[in-house]
Amino acid sequence: MFCIERFMLHICRHEITGVITKVGSNVKNFKLGDRVGVGCLAASCLECEFCKNSQENYCDQIQFTYNGIFWDGTITYGGYSEMLVADHRYVVHVPDNLPMDAAAPLLCAGITVFSPMKDCQLLESPGKKVGIVGLGGLGHVAVKMAKAFGHQVTVISTSPSKENEAKQRLDADYFLVSTDAKQMQRGKRTLDVILDTVSAKHSLGPILELLKVNGTLVVVGAPDRPIELPSFPLIFGKRAVKGSMTGGMKETQEMMDVCGKHNITCDVELIKPDKINQALDRLARNDVRYRFVIDIAGTCKL
Amino acid sequence: MFCIERFMLHICRHEITGVITKVGSNVKNFKLGDRVGVGCLAASCLECEFCKNSQENYCDQIQFTYNGIFWDGTITYGGYSEMLVADHRYVVHVPDNLPMDAAAPLLCAGITVFSPMKDCQLLESPGKKVGIVGLGGLGHVAVKMAKAFGHQVTVISTSPSKENEAKQRLDADYFLVSTDAKQMQRGKRTLDVILDTVSAKHSLGPILELLKVNGTLVVVGAPDRPIELPSFPLIFGKRAVKGSMTGGMKETQEMMDVCGKHNITCDVELIKPDKINQALDRLARNDVRYRFVIDIAGTCKL
Repeated sequence: MFCIERFMLHICRHEITGVITKVGSNVKNFKLGDRVGVGCLAASCLECEFCKNSQENYCDQIQFTYNGIFWDGTITYGGYSEMLVADHRYVVHVPDNLPMDAAAPLLCAGITVFSPMKDCQLLESPGKKVGIVGLGGLGHVAVKMAKAFGHQVTVISTSPSKENEAKQRLDADYFLVSTDAKQMQRGKRTLDVILDTVSAKHSLGPILELLKVNGTLVVVGAPDRPIELPSFPLIFGKRAVKGSMTGGMKETQEMMDVCGKHNITCDVELIKPDKINQALDRLARNDVRYRFVIDIAGTCKL
Repeated sequence: MFCIERFMLHICRHEITGVITKVGSNVKNFKLGDRVGVGCLAASCLECEFCKNSQENYCDQIQFTYNGIFWDGTITYGGYSEMLVADHRYVVHVPDNLPMDAAAPLLCAGITVFSPMKDCQLLESPGKKVGIVGLGGLGHVAVKMAKAFGHQVTVISTSPSKENEAKQRLDADYFLVSTDAKQMQRGKRTLDVILDTVSAKHSLGPILELLKVNGTLVVVGAPDRPIELPSFPLIFGKRAVKGSMTGGMKETQEMMDVCGKHNITCDVELIKPDKINQALDRLARNDVRYRFVIDIAGTCKL
């Protein structure tokens, strides 16, 4: 176990970066002063097939860093504190070239889109046609990764106003307005893989139609109400809808290293702790590009 | 092109078996007297990547044997006639040991469940835990195939009354009543692959929970209204929901040969053509075990 001090955290409190100030006597892979990150995972059973295979995120004893009741009965509050004690197994190194604030959201947003991209062989096979549904906290990182991995990227959004952002700033190749039937019709059967990052309720039908036969749509947005899945575009196109939840710890470190190599970070708005309530109000209005990060340690110039 | 006479057909008119009475001059793979079958596919473009790879079922120019408007403007009526002219590319041989009536539904029900089983490597890797949702025309064939391929089979149904049928007659290993929360709870994370053959609207949530992490549910039942897909069991179990529609012609012949080898046929009720209306009434009440087959040629003893 060790402590991390002076950390940044995304306002949802489970994307935490900081510097190590104390290291447990049995910890070999971290030392004082290391720049590190902690994501969603606080603990897992360490004994099941998933823990043994570094897929701790699918362990059914999983404990989250936030909003969870830990095995000892305490509540986990994530990064809302000046100090964090974490099990070394659930900590990753942050590459030196990545700023601590802009790297923080990689701990959840980043790994959430990286893991299915790796699963769909997007890391080793460039030149695919990749769709990203939703241009928010997850979506904008997904666009950066997909471009860095050499793919042709189409952003699909309900907001025509995001076209410039997607194409000019994030370098997406195409942009489709999902409510424009003509645009969606022209895009039919063109994409190999789609990542759907939208949490709002929506039908998968028109999005599935964009996939080639045998294409895969990965749901990472977790709408709280059931998604509408029409069977015909699924069946007639032999398509797949997959789920994916964050990633294992080995994969999270790999994601960090890959982001270091390609210089991928999240676009963030850094705030002081006394602005948390205002930030939460703005979050409720979707008014953020793309993550608020709180400078708990107060070491950044704001 | 050639003609098939004396054929049986499933009452939905696209599962047709018969004997060849005429063969076109360029046809090499069939001869007079051959026992053959025709399924859903009447024609496809022959030029796209799918046609070239014998996945004609995913060609976007596909023409169905029934209820379709053919390229020449005529309507296709499937097997409701005493004679059928078919393109040899969409005809398969029926193994000698399979009766023509009980083999007929393999042309759609059989290939519809065989294709995703093959896709999920169930033909070459015995010992998997396979779930079959719905014990009807598709489901009962799926149980027979999964058992023949060496898997442990669980039937999932809303009807407790089908347990005997499933376990004693069809040799399923387990039976779960999908409306029994306790049974479904006990079955969580136990299955590798599930085939969902149900056409009625239903939620995939409780069914997805039965899958192990990384498990696959294949939808072959084609409900006409959108399926309810809750994101949490999808995401937390990294599960996949796939679609599959019949099969290509090469695969259909393979399915026929495999059924011949394992002596797999469908359970049918053979009727004379003058009983079609009564059979349709019974179908509307789900009162059939499991397919009506019409003896158009009148060569079977009824």
